Order: sequence, then C-alpha cells, then structure tokens
Amino acid sequence: MSSTKQGKIVIVTGVPGVGKTTVLNAALDLCLKSGKDVSLVNYGNIMFEEASKLGLVRARDEMRRLPVKTQVDLQLQASESIRQINGNVIVDTHMFINTSKGYMPGIPSWVAGALKPDAIVLLEADPEEISKRRSKDVAIRVRESDSPERITEHQMMGRAGAAAVSVQTGCTVVVAKNREGGYIEAAKVIASLFWEG
Amino acid sequence: MSSTKQGKIVIVTGVPGVGKTTVLNAALDLCLKSGKDVSLVNYGNIMFEEASKLGLVRARDEMRRLPVKTQVDLQLQASESIRQINGNVIVDTHMFINTSKGYMPGIPSWVAGALKPDAIVLLEADPEEISKRRSKDVAIRVRESDSPERITEHQMMGRAGAAAVSVQTGCTVVVAKNREGGYIEAAKVIASLFWEG
Amino acid sequence: MSSTKQGKIVIVTGVPGVGKTTVLNAALDLCLKSGKDVSLVNYGNIMFEEASKLGLVRARDEMRRLPVKTQVDLQLQASESIRQINGNVIVDTHMFINTSKGYMPGIPSWVAGALKPDAIVLLEADPEEISKRRSKDVAIRVRESDSPERITEHQMMGRAGAAAVSVQTGCTVVVAKNREGGYIEAAKVIASLFWEG
Repeated sequence: MSSTKQGKIVIVTGVPGVGKTTVLNAALDLCLKSGKDVSLVNYGNIMFEEASKLGLVRARDEMRRLPVKTQVDLQLQASESIRQINGNVIVDTHMFINTSKGYMPGIPSWVAGALKPDAIVLLEADPEEISKRRSKDVAIRVRESDSPERITEHQMMGRAGAAAVSVQTGCTVVVAKNREGGYIEAAKVIASLFWEG
Repeated sequence: MSSTKQGKIVIVTGVPGVGKTTVLNAALDLCLKSGKDVSLVNYGNIMFEEASKLGLVRARDEMRRLPVKTQVDLQLQASESIRQINGNVIVDTHMFINTSKGYMPGIPSWVAGALKPDAIVLLEADPEEISKRRSKDVAIRVRESDSPERITEHQMMGRAGAAAVSVQTGCTVVVAKNREGGYIEAAKVIASLFWEG
Repeated sequence: MSSTKQGKIVIVTGVPGVGKTTVLNAALDLCLKSGKDVSLVNYGNIMFEEASKLGLVRARDEMRRLPVKTQVDLQLQASESIRQINGNVIVDTHMFINTSKGYMPGIPSWVAGALKPDAIVLLEADPEEISKRRSKDVAIRVRESDSPERITEHQMMGRAGAAAVSVQTGCTVVVAKNREGGYIEAAKVIASLFWEG
C-alpha cells in the first residue's frame, strides 16, 4: 500500500538555469551531516528506466512519442517505484516544462495523487540572473523564452501549478530563493523539510 | 467515445479588450493558408444552442438563471458537441468571467474533464493598453474593474486557473502576447499549435 | 443532503495582518443593517469543537499532531457542520497557512468539495502595510516571512489556490482590497455577495 510509506517525499522543481543541481547536492550534504538518510531521484530517469525495462524505448527522446495512455502508465509506475524507496526521498522534476506546444505539466493530477508528496519546493532565482546564466551556456541557443519576462512567467506558472497540486493533495509548498552566492541557504530550506517539528 | 477524437482542441481565452476576435481571425487565416482545417466555435454559443434546442431558454441572458444542475448538464453537452466536431477546433471562451459576484470559472473541472483540451492559450495584452481600449468603447461604462490594476489581477487569475486545468488534465498552457500592432505574432502562436512536431 | 443548503457559504481568507477581523465585523454589521441574516464561523474553531467532542484533543495545538486521516475526518465533519447552519454563512479561514514546512493549504480539495462554497474572498492589503502592522505587534517575533517580498508571495499563492478551488468547485473568487482607512469598502464587497442579482 503506497499510503504506508515511511519517510518523506519532497519534490524539488525549478526552471532551467535556476541552479537546481548545485542546490540539491548541497541539500543532500546537509542531510547527510545531520544524520538524515535522503535519496535523490530524477523523475524523468525513473520513467525512462521503467520504459526501458518494458522494451518500449531505447532513448529518452522516444518517450514523448509513446501513446498518451502508455506515458500515463509509465508515470504511474514511476510514482509507485518512488514510493517504494525506503526512507526520505527528494524527487527532482519540473512543475512545468517549456515545450514548443506550451507549458507542459510535470506533475499532473494523476502523478500528484500517486506520488502523494509531503512538500513541493519551488526553487526560484532572479529572472535576470537566470537569463544571463542561460546566455553564457554556449550549448544553448538563446530564444525568446530565455528573456527575463518569460522566465518570470515560467516561475509564476510554477507557483500556480504547485498551488493546484497542494490544494489537490494537501502537500505544502515552499518557495526557496537561490540567490547569487547563496545556494547554501536554499539547500538549508530543503534539508530542513526532513527535520522533525 | 469522446477519447477517440481526431484532431486537436485548443481553448483560447482572454479578458475583454485583449483583442481576441482579431487574433482568432488571423489565426484561422494562417491555418487555412498552411492547409490546416480548423473550426472555430464559441463555447457560450454552443451552450446556448443546446439550451435552445431543449426549449430551456429563448435568450442568452436567461441561461444563468437556470438551476445550477441544468447549467452543468448544458456545459457537459456543449463539451461533448465540441468533441464530436471533425478535425481541429479552436474553442473561444473565458478562463474567468468578471461578474458582480466575483471571477466565475469559464472552464470548471467538469468542463475541462469533458473537453479534454490539448492546449489552453492565454491571450494577454498590456493592462494599460486594455484599459485604454475599454475606455474608448462608448458602449462600455467604465468601471473600477477596468483599471490596469484590476486587469493585471484578472490576467493573473487566468494564468492560475489555466495552471489548475493543466495539472488536472495534462494539457499545455501557452501565454500569447497580443502586443500593440503585433496581432499576427499572437495568431502565429495559436496556429503553430496545430502543426506537427 | 448537503447539496440542498439554503443560503450562501462565503469563505473569507487573508494573510495575518491584513485586517480580517475588522473587515469581517464591519461586513456582518452591513449585512445586519440590510436585513440579511449572516452567521460568522471560524473554520479552525469548528474543527477544534468536533475534535473536543470526540475527546481527541484538549487544546488546539494538539490537533496538528493527530494522524493525517483523523485530521481529514475532522475537516470533513467541520465542513458538514457548517453546511448544516441555517441561512447565510461566512467562513473565516486561510487559503494557505505559512508553516515551518511551507505553505499548507487551508482549503484542500476534499474540504472544498464538502463545503461547496459559493464564493471565496481573498482579502488583500499592501504588503508594505501588512509588514509594518506585523512589526508593530509586540507579540510577534519579526521573521523573514514578514518581509514585503514574502507577503507578496503569500498573497499570490492565495490567488493561485483560490483559482484552483474555483476551477474544482465552480465557486467565484473575489479579490477585496483592504486599503488603509478603507475597511468599509472591503466589508461592502463581502456583504454584497449575499445580495440578490
């Protein structure tokens, strides 16, 4: 029964360029130092593993070409796998993914209902800062979606989506600021969700 | 079965004065030129047609005086009628309607679940611009709700409502800007949702 | 049957320091003067009464230590009790409560579904004003969450949560501004929700 899970599930989301990897690694470090055992999983990776096991895809890119029903089944299986992990889990995923067809929900209601998270962390940073970071990344072609205005919009959509999931499931929502040179502060906010009280 | 619909359903919403009619006509034009067959329907009109057929009302105004249960039934029938249209459909409706009792949802969860849209487009414009346009329209009595502050609020509520529908159904959300003199850009954003890839 | 309730249910929410008590008392006064019978209940108090009756707790603080399932049962019982009140009801509660684990939803989907509110009022004030009021309250230790930036965030989350409840249930959402020296205006907005038309 998924509802008997021991330990907490904390979803961490953030737009590209917000500095999620750095913050998550620091959060895991803080958890370890405070004696809290916390696993970090990437939601997309778990879904891909499920799809690979079933022989449905060989590359990650192929997943979004699967029939919608198959994708939903994979999402539910991934959620169930995550709930079966012992102890505390951080799930690295997106609230909304910016695609050519618009913002796609990363935590649709069926995933939220299956994952039953304790909290969703919205990792946010200054849109100007994120825009600058993206423009420095030579691997990324700068697009209109990388303007501070669009990043503000993306982060605002994230808040609205998290509010919807919170109302649906009862989980809490944490807005953690990843300020320039202050990633440790954001990491502390995440780590503190696993402390008692 | 409604779930076997061929073609896409794209809902387009926007506050009064955003320029929706102009943008939608341009979008239909672009679709036609690119060989895509797209029908445009107005959600309220379809509901009114259903109500008229059943002899429930003679004028549109009478609809909101029908019992709530009847209104819900009409909404579901209208959604089903739209899903039975062959090919691609643009549904012209509102995310929230500004009434004397507050913002009323135009796409409540039961409509969203029945319509199963592929995408919701939030057509937005500069609140100062919208406010000016409304004040030029002599048919409209200028009210406090026409202030840029209230228009900002209305558009923000639209984003939050679209995020909730997106989380519920999995549809994408597109924020399309109708900038002064740039309605073709907004139309392209809508038309591109019917293209492949 | 809860769906046969006579009278309206209006939920009023607002962050600490917004001036909710003053506005609610003025709204009740206006209702009384206009001959409208309206009861005011505090959602948390009703929940505590239900828990006390069942011998589950002796102090309010003990409620959040009850098993989650028990808390949900109490929420549903409180919602049912409120629906059984004769006539119009204002429910004083929170859209999101700022806890050490993040924003906790005050009106999760099961409460919204059981309460079936007609409207949610978001009582808002200028974040700078709220921040100042909180700093003057000697009983409150000033925290980072009392900064205007965080109050803006809290109020924005409230809008998003209300949009989600509105989409779920079909209730309207009213953003009522409690401007400095203008609490009567905010009270009028609330009272007018009980008027016809």
